[in-house]
Amino acid sequence: MSSIWGKNLKISIFGESHGTAVGVTIDNIQPGLVIDEEKIKSFMKRRSSSGLAWATKRNEEDIPEIVSGLYKGKTTGTPLCAIIRNTDTRSGDYKKTISIPRPGHADLTAFARYKGFQDPRGGGHFSGRLTAPLVFAGAICRQILEEKNIHLFTHILSIMDIEDKRFNSITRDFKSLRHLKESSFPVIDSKAGEDMIKKIMEVKSNHDSCGGRVECMAAGLPAGMGSPVFEGIESKIASIMFSIPAVKGVEFGLGFGSTQITGSENNDNPYFEEGKSSIFYGSNNAGGIEGGITNGMPLVCTVAFKPTPSISMEQDSVNIETKQNTKLNVTGRHDPCIVPRACVVVEAAMAIALTDIYYDFYPMRGNV
Amino acid sequence: MSSIWGKNLKISIFGESHGTAVGVTIDNIQPGLVIDEEKIKSFMKRRSSSGLAWATKRNEEDIPEIVSGLYKGKTTGTPLCAIIRNTDTRSGDYKKTISIPRPGHADLTAFARYKGFQDPRGGGHFSGRLTAPLVFAGAICRQILEEKNIHLFTHILSIMDIEDKRFNSITRDFKSLRHLKESSFPVIDSKAGEDMIKKIMEVKSNHDSCGGRVECMAAGLPAGMGSPVFEGIESKIASIMFSIPAVKGVEFGLGFGSTQITGSENNDNPYFEEGKSSIFYGSNNAGGIEGGITNGMPLVCTVAFKPTPSISMEQDSVNIETKQNTKLNVTGRHDPCIVPRACVVVEAAMAIALTDIYYDFYPMRGNV
Amino acid sequence: MSSIWGKNLKISIFGESHGTAVGVTIDNIQPGLVIDEEKIKSFMKRRSSSGLAWATKRNEEDIPEIVSGLYKGKTTGTPLCAIIRNTDTRSGDYKKTISIPRPGHADLTAFARYKGFQDPRGGGHFSGRLTAPLVFAGAICRQILEEKNIHLFTHILSIMDIEDKRFNSITRDFKSLRHLKESSFPVIDSKAGEDMIKKIMEVKSNHDSCGGRVECMAAGLPAGMGSPVFEGIESKIASIMFSIPAVKGVEFGLGFGSTQITGSENNDNPYFEEGKSSIFYGSNNAGGIEGGITNGMPLVCTVAFKPTPSISMEQDSVNIETKQNTKLNVTGRHDPCIVPRACVVVEAAMAIALTDIYYDFYPMRGNV
Amino acid sequence: MSSIWGKNLKISIFGESHGTAVGVTIDNIQPGLVIDEEKIKSFMKRRSSSGLAWATKRNEEDIPEIVSGLYKGKTTGTPLCAIIRNTDTRSGDYKKTISIPRPGHADLTAFARYKGFQDPRGGGHFSGRLTAPLVFAGAICRQILEEKNIHLFTHILSIMDIEDKRFNSITRDFKSLRHLKESSFPVIDSKAGEDMIKKIMEVKSNHDSCGGRVECMAAGLPAGMGSPVFEGIESKIASIMFSIPAVKGVEFGLGFGSTQITGSENNDNPYFEEGKSSIFYGSNNAGGIEGGITNGMPLVCTVAFKPTPSISMEQDSVNIETKQNTKLNVTGRHDPCIVPRACVVVEAAMAIALTDIYYDFYPMRGNV
Repeated sequence: MSSIWGKNLKISIFGESHGTAVGVTIDNIQPGLVIDEEKIKSFMKRRSSSGLAWATKRNEEDIPEIVSGLYKGKTTGTPLCAIIRNTDTRSGDYKKTISIPRPGHADLTAFARYKGFQDPRGGGHFSGRLTAPLVFAGAICRQILEEKNIHLFTHILSIMDIEDKRFNSITRDFKSLRHLKESSFPVIDSKAGEDMIKKIMEVKSNHDSCGGRVECMAAGLPAGMGSPVFEGIESKIASIMFSIPAVKGVEFGLGFGSTQITGSENNDNPYFEEGKSSIFYGSNNAGGIEGGITNGMPLVCTVAFKPTPSISMEQDSVNIETKQNTKLNVTGRHDPCIVPRACVVVEAAMAIALTDIYYDFYPMRGNV
Repeated sequence: MSSIWGKNLKISIFGESHGTAVGVTIDNIQPGLVIDEEKIKSFMKRRSSSGLAWATKRNEEDIPEIVSGLYKGKTTGTPLCAIIRNTDTRSGDYKKTISIPRPGHADLTAFARYKGFQDPRGGGHFSGRLTAPLVFAGAICRQILEEKNIHLFTHILSIMDIEDKRFNSITRDFKSLRHLKESSFPVIDSKAGEDMIKKIMEVKSNHDSCGGRVECMAAGLPAGMGSPVFEGIESKIASIMFSIPAVKGVEFGLGFGSTQITGSENNDNPYFEEGKSSIFYGSNNAGGIEGGITNGMPLVCTVAFKPTPSISMEQDSVNIETKQNTKLNVTGRHDPCIVPRACVVVEAAMAIALTDIYYDFYPMRGNV
Repeated sequence: MSSIWGKNLKISIFGESHGTAVGVTIDNIQPGLVIDEEKIKSFMKRRSSSGLAWATKRNEEDIPEIVSGLYKGKTTGTPLCAIIRNTDTRSGDYKKTISIPRPGHADLTAFARYKGFQDPRGGGHFSGRLTAPLVFAGAICRQILEEKNIHLFTHILSIMDIEDKRFNSITRDFKSLRHLKESSFPVIDSKAGEDMIKKIMEVKSNHDSCGGRVECMAAGLPAGMGSPVFEGIESKIASIMFSIPAVKGVEFGLGFGSTQITGSENNDNPYFEEGKSSIFYGSNNAGGIEGGITNGMPLVCTVAFKPTPSISMEQDSVNIETKQNTKLNVTGRHDPCIVPRACVVVEAAMAIALTDIYYDFYPMRGNV
Repeated sequence: MSSIWGKNLKISIFGESHGTAVGVTIDNIQPGLVIDEEKIKSFMKRRSSSGLAWATKRNEEDIPEIVSGLYKGKTTGTPLCAIIRNTDTRSGDYKKTISIPRPGHADLTAFARYKGFQDPRGGGHFSGRLTAPLVFAGAICRQILEEKNIHLFTHILSIMDIEDKRFNSITRDFKSLRHLKESSFPVIDSKAGEDMIKKIMEVKSNHDSCGGRVECMAAGLPAGMGSPVFEGIESKIASIMFSIPAVKGVEFGLGFGSTQITGSENNDNPYFEEGKSSIFYGSNNAGGIEGGITNGMPLVCTVAFKPTPSISMEQDSVNIETKQNTKLNVTGRHDPCIVPRACVVVEAAMAIALTDIYYDFYPMRGNV
């Protein structure tokens, strides 16, 4: 199932960084969904590096061609396949890396896995380029969720030691977060955002790179989604998040932070608000999930991205042909920090995961 | 697929905390494996609370009855089902919790998911009791891996703010870690262990609870296991780890810590040791995984456990029958800290995940 | 996935013919279903051989013990596991067959598949005994379908060359078929039934065996169930039918017969009945399925059972230990014709398949 | 999973008859396979109707564009996606069928399934056109099998009542069958072939259509492939065969014919040939499969195709807009008999199924 994910809604990803194209087939999508191509383009643009100081100069328009599953502007319900041609590829940049693996990349492990037959140019199937079709699929899923009044918000929680505010610090009304959906550097606290950009530029000027954390929230989920033991909502979301290149950690709610406090501090206590029959919680340390099942509070997930492994300073590596130790200077175009562009990828993965889980509980026949 | 996990080796878990029994069916296991019942018992005993100050007083011998898949002491290759009868159940302890959900537990979400038909006694299918069959399955998988010279080590990395040494601080020779396999409170630094126990007893005396982190390492894995995009080894392991009750975070290698350092610090640089043709790495910040594929270094995974939600101090909750806010005193038997007993559960989950992935690459016919 | 079947409702079968027990875990069943144990017993009794001239003398009461997933007489929604202990086993009967495989059985192929580690007694996991837990699961699924007004009918369509009437010969009102649900030798035309029994007894007196066809019909299915390309309703049903021991052919509607007529004869033409807005068809050669999707007409499936391979006359075989050709006299207890008892197995498999598919389209939360 | 099939090797099909393109992604293919594009083209040509009296005049060259998974002429091991553009589409032919469903087609069931949002032109995703990507995938799988010395042969077993010889009538040496791989009307007995063509032309001249049976054989399979209970080789093959449009029956070996004879006639008796240590069978009524597992004899599967539902004579149907009964004249281009062209589709499906199952037992890493 390597490049296929999902149970009810299935996505099947294909392509290599410097091959003909990348793309995705979405299987089992509901019929009758009006595809808003402008929304998709604007969502995909958040993944683009165009004109951004902290991003690679590789610059593709990434116009997906939908070759199936769409009829008269609406989904048919049968597989929707979209293809994104690769246009701005400069494989010359990568020649050296074929015999000298780039530290921190999948070059050596891909070699071990595929016995040397993998497409090594630009990381091939392991490239961040494969997140383009993921974001396309996420754009469609986000639209499905929005029709069900489920809204996703994503921001940069930290770049190295500089931290943004957390979603849990925001009151229940999320209007103030709308700007995150338009931003190429989404943060809640704009001052923190400025400091983050400074940090990235500083690291870049040192020929180095850095990572950070992305926080994603889904508001509006009904309580009761997810299934014990192995189909808990955290298991499903984590499995797709760890498929994003450079992700090394995933947590929900307080996550690792919950190990620092006591049970009485960590428990979220339910209560009835006066005059209402639905249940609220006094805190949301669980990130909206208990026993793998949504409790109706906003689902909060944090994802750790390691620093971009491609750095322009000289590094130690090996030459797998000559079997000798050697030095490597990576010369391709790379982001000093992929975290800003990764936000939309995390949001796309979340949208796909939640749509798949949603379909476990609600019928997907027609658009009723 | 809720209570079924795996692709090549599949485990199917059943049972409730206070029902007749819990159990597991292991499907697609290799034939001809000699089942060492003593090893299984001793592994399962590490999950037991018997005689430990920091653990619940519920005390079951947990002797699994293997009802299929075993013939003349060896696996047949057809499904191996084991049943563990529940003996020491005191459902009376839980009566109150049927209408008043315990904060931090799955009581309310199970109600939402199963419309009130779930077995509420002791958390039913959501109970930590379900980790008993998981540990049984893990015991068998650990034996499979050991025959392939893959060894697992697990310890308590932290209890609240008290930290043990990390596996990465240990040199390549893991002989010094053998004692972890026997210990009911496995730590590398015994002084840290003493402080952890003190901390747990202190928290307990406050009628409160605490959590911590468990670190698990697999040494001896061949390079090249795991598949992009969605069947990366991190995705598979995370999906099973998040099915363990109380887990709120999973990371590999430095994980969240890698967001604090630069690329040049974080990259693991490969090298040939003099006179050898295999590749080593100067560090293991990646935890043995690059691009979702093993690189031959020890696989390191850290799991965050939230504090035990059941605490003996009074808490705010709701009465879902009367629809009123109320107070709750939880009176069942509970661990003030489940982390020590969770170590073996994490190791079992790791063993199951790695066996499943291993079977992706190596044939499972016969015991060759 | 060898002994697990299904996508939404999953069944996981375990056990061997002469081992401790056989059983099944039903995963993802809807919560709140009242389990009618009498109905289950009476359904399972149709699989029993007790007191029947044409059946084996092995006689077990087959009382399933439900060890999980049931609370206060209703399904909880979490895995329901039932165990049926093997009581009347006489392994002595099978000793010879360990080195001399029985022709027509899985003895040799099981040996090749499991390298000699399989449980050979009574066919082990390959035994028809494994249909007992399948029938248990089918009994529950049949109850789920009946609550949705979907009714299954099954009969012996033929024994060798003696044929019963087909379901398609019956008018829309199926009241006249009710007796099939109670019968241990279900036929529509009782005269044909008598001839069939005579034929079986004649074959038996020749120390030989015979097979036949079973026809199963599901009435009341809504139109629109099933999915192209690979999840068509025929693909799903065929995949479970071919897992029943001795099945060698599966067809829907006219099936192989449709190759003998022209398109104008075979097409089922839709029409509106006067004054009604729903669509009927003038014939049902398609067996209620077009393009892998139900059309609202009764679903009709026919299954071919080969003659029981165990016969009491002497046969040629090999001795796999001495590597010599030899003669074999099979001495166990066997049905001269398993078709009568297979009817309930086919019906159970159909019930499981349809419930799984039904859950693709309709929510399974609660018993609404 | 609707348009995805397989466990180890997964194929994901997309496209509509008159949309932009049809295509397939092959996931988990082994790396290092040399793709012989000429072989693929020549295999796909057997599906083509070009210049054949008994086939539709729709005529597309069907040149697949491989957009991923291929590097320097070899498979990389990551998903291989191929796209086949639709060029010769005349949707005008189908306008009428949007409100008046064609009897025997999926028009009405697709409407019920997709609530009217399906692409109705030419049957959309239900069209026989979708077998083009299936045949592409089969061409690659056939190449994989041939490297393992597994060879597939397929022929028209019958057209209406005219029958070809069966594979079981051929002696062990299959050299005489080679011509089947090149033929656009593959039969063993050329005289029967001539009669079949006459029959088809006669039916066509009556504005009618006819069906028939296709027999497919796989020689060279090792004994021991397939798994009880639900992953038997018959279950897997049947599930993919029933996804081919117009298939209404599947049988293995004697299949339905085995219900007409006794056990002593039907059992295949094993024997050692003098001086050899491997086991042969005196007959192959089981079609090479016992207990769902290969026994080393040729695997034989027969598939029933109903008559082409599109016929040029006037038929009764309904108008789903006006809700009235009406007459329909189907005017598109259709084969009077699809059986000749279906042979290669059956062979492709068989190749895919066997490759998937093969990977269950043998490693797929590298081309070792």
